Amino acid sequence: MEPWANSGLGRDLHLDLTVSGGARSSGVRAHLVSALRESIRSGRLAAGTTLPASRTLAVDLGIARNTVAEAYSELVAEGWLTARQGSGTRVADRAGQPSHGPRAHTTSSPGPALSLAPGSPDVGEFPRTAWIASARRALSAAPNEAFGHGDPRGRIELRRALAEYLSRARGVRTDPEHIVVSASSGHGLWLLARSLKGAFAVEEYGLHLHRELLCDAGVVTIPMELDSRGARPPDVGGRRPSAALLTPAHQFPTGGPLHHSRRTAFVEWARTTGGIVIEDDYDGEFRYDRQPIGALQGLAPEQVVYLGTATKSLSPAIRVGWMVLPENLIDGILAVKGIYERWVSATDQLTLADFAESGAFDRHVRRMRTSYRRRRDTLVATLAEQAPHVHVTGIAAGLHAVLELPEGTETATVARATALGLEVLGLRTFRHPDAVTNRVDGLVVGYGTPSSSLFAETIDVLCQALPTPHSPIP
Amino acid sequence: MEPWANSGLGRDLHLDLTVSGGARSSGVRAHLVSALRESIRSGRLAAGTTLPASRTLAVDLGIARNTVAEAYSELVAEGWLTARQGSGTRVADRAGQPSHGPRAHTTSSPGPALSLAPGSPDVGEFPRTAWIASARRALSAAPNEAFGHGDPRGRIELRRALAEYLSRARGVRTDPEHIVVSASSGHGLWLLARSLKGAFAVEEYGLHLHRELLCDAGVVTIPMELDSRGARPPDVGGRRPSAALLTPAHQFPTGGPLHHSRRTAFVEWARTTGGIVIEDDYDGEFRYDRQPIGALQGLAPEQVVYLGTATKSLSPAIRVGWMVLPENLIDGILAVKGIYERWVSATDQLTLADFAESGAFDRHVRRMRTSYRRRRDTLVATLAEQAPHVHVTGIAAGLHAVLELPEGTETATVARATALGLEVLGLRTFRHPDAVTNRVDGLVVGYGTPSSSLFAETIDVLCQALPTPHSPIP
Repeated sequence: MEPWANSGLGRDLHLDLTVSGGARSSGVRAHLVSALRESIRSGRLAAGTTLPASRTLAVDLGIARNTVAEAYSELVAEGWLTARQGSGTRVADRAGQPSHGPRAHTTSSPGPALSLAPGSPDVGEFPRTAWIASARRALSAAPNEAFGHGDPRGRIELRRALAEYLSRARGVRTDPEHIVVSASSGHGLWLLARSLKGAFAVEEYGLHLHRELLCDAGVVTIPMELDSRGARPPDVGGRRPSAALLTPAHQFPTGGPLHHSRRTAFVEWARTTGGIVIEDDYDGEFRYDRQPIGALQGLAPEQVVYLGTATKSLSPAIRVGWMVLPENLIDGILAVKGIYERWVSATDQLTLADFAESGAFDRHVRRMRTSYRRRRDTLVATLAEQAPHVHVTGIAAGLHAVLELPEGTETATVARATALGLEVLGLRTFRHPDAVTNRVDGLVVGYGTPSSSLFAETIDVLCQALPTPHSPIP
Repeated sequence: MEPWANSGLGRDLHLDLTVSGGARSSGVRAHLVSALRESIRSGRLAAGTTLPASRTLAVDLGIARNTVAEAYSELVAEGWLTARQGSGTRVADRAGQPSHGPRAHTTSSPGPALSLAPGSPDVGEFPRTAWIASARRALSAAPNEAFGHGDPRGRIELRRALAEYLSRARGVRTDPEHIVVSASSGHGLWLLARSLKGAFAVEEYGLHLHRELLCDAGVVTIPMELDSRGARPPDVGGRRPSAALLTPAHQFPTGGPLHHSRRTAFVEWARTTGGIVIEDDYDGEFRYDRQPIGALQGLAPEQVVYLGTATKSLSPAIRVGWMVLPENLIDGILAVKGIYERWVSATDQLTLADFAESGAFDRHVRRMRTSYRRRRDTLVATLAEQAPHVHVTGIAAGLHAVLELPEGTETATVARATALGLEVLGLRTFRHPDAVTNRVDGLVVGYGTPSSSLFAETIDVLCQALPTPHSPIP
């Protein structure tokens, strides 16, 4: 056993306690507890070391004996020390394991300097001032119960604002009672998977994140063929999925709208089979060359679940999404959601409600629509000039375009971009493993992602990475 | 087919379009689209109705023919209308299903007027002004990337602030690299369940929400016996759970601290079996009669996961929790969390970081500690006077107390309280179905829940509901 006297602790404690001289006894006790704990942690006081009697240490430090006794008993209660009648107070066995050292940053290695990965808006354009103003107004005006556990459907203020906005801007038919707030469209999809179960039909090219989520929720995904009109409804004679997940306004990632004949065909499919159409309206606000295409949900509110989110229109930092539900799904979703309700920020919900009702959301969307359209035009013009052999599609809407590449060049192009410091994803990243169609090679270019100051440079690097018409990368 | 001329639509459109006279043609088109859509929705234009040729309607309305043609083609794209060569434009079949009516408020029936349900702080005391000030500072100063998708571990600003706070206030041994931000301690527990799998040992009285979550994640729960020293570690010879979930600072709901001999016994259990101790420190900030008991995690950072949350110390509206993880669990948790990262608000994370670093969090906790201690003293004094036969336990800490009732009176007491308009939960609500111990009848009284203005009245109603010593409710 290392004797207490050699530990140098008495001197350290002295210093600590002198610094806080004049403090009340609870302050002195706290300092003593903290100094002893740190000495045990650091290993200076080894396991088994006997501490001086409280009376002795009190005299040594010039403090009340009771203060020392209380500090000891606190550390005994915490398991740092053990006290046995007759054998004094000792440092507990194994209490002094050294703390782990600083962790290597294995999980946060910086990515490439430039990115055209889809799925992000221009985060430099987040409307900070207007958002802060909405937060101030909303949190000042909210009733006290807003700071409690809350309604599993989400804040009524937000559901009211969304009902108005979705009806006006997206042609959704709803009211606040049919809206359930989620943390994102992924969260909404996850709640649907837990509630509907079975198999979900998904577009054969689509967001891999959603496929992973569904798989994790125990739902099998069945790919739906994509042709020039968009997805084809599942074969009624085959296996009957409980839901079909679609991106009708702007197919992700290939970029076309769902043809009107398919819109009605999916509604017909749902009515015939009892299946649910899930409309992921992830970027419906951004349509450039004509009026937005209204939501499919407006055609058949009892067959279609509408999923929306603030991710693209505002920021992925605002973790708020919304589900517009048919009457007969609401109770099932709330039963599943009950457990997870606490995952959606009430302060963000209140702020977003004010942001929408004050008109700031409309202003922001209009401003960003102009900005993204300009980016798209620049992208198209630059490609026409520097890579006229590359065909660009899916550009009527959203924040991404598809660049069709010569056959067999996708992987090498992505690798070349990476080598040039540019993150860009190939079309096959989004392909369902059981897809029947093999689309052309291509890149999915998220032109909303770069900051304004890096946009021109990013497009230049993209052009450098593209295969040339005469010497395609093998 | 109802003829167009009888629908009265032409007149309505006229009015709408006159009001917006002078608008650009896109505004006129939008009005026309919206008016037609609404007429189809409402059923005024029935399925199959043939619309006038675009030239006719244009003349009728005094607008450009092209505007009408564009409006029609938009509604065709949306599936409201169908257009066939030679047969004109018609209202699509089934497009005009009436919108569902307002939904009855079946899921939001108001609860009892008064509540002593545990698990909520005094929401009337949410520090709005300080929180708004933190939001303003944090969102103004944040780098642009803060408004992007972000690090799955959570914002670095918050992890830094938490490492400092937890070390100082709760004796946790950590650094920002070992902290992962979650949406709540339930979310953290859910991530642990998905990552560790197997069976979890849980206290035989505990939060039913957590048991449900674990079950939902596919994890079996095994009850651990509770005696006067707290939970007993699982029998090493029996089935080996992958984790043991504990509330060491203040057992929920029975209210005692975990005895120091059990603290070391659980660390020993973890070292022997390779199991993980999960420390749910749900109300560790609130201890009244002595210094807080430091976190168990401080004894063995490689065996203990520490879970904390802002729910009790601040508000359930702030959906932010934190996990302090042993080195070897981090990658597994991040692998699971990757998919669900988008469920924690980045704006709340940034704001909470500023709130902690500016000292506002400490000030709020100190103020609330005084307030809750006063409530506890009032509760104890009132019971001593009005129901001296009822024994109160678990009052050294937290926001709830346990009232021990005469045997066989719990259910009737809860029912009597409900009849008097008071929500209060019996001890058996929290009992694991396979618990070996049958504790005394009792009430779990969350005295943090009522608003200040209702506190006295709520305690009075509680006293009225309690069984009398001479005539216990049968």
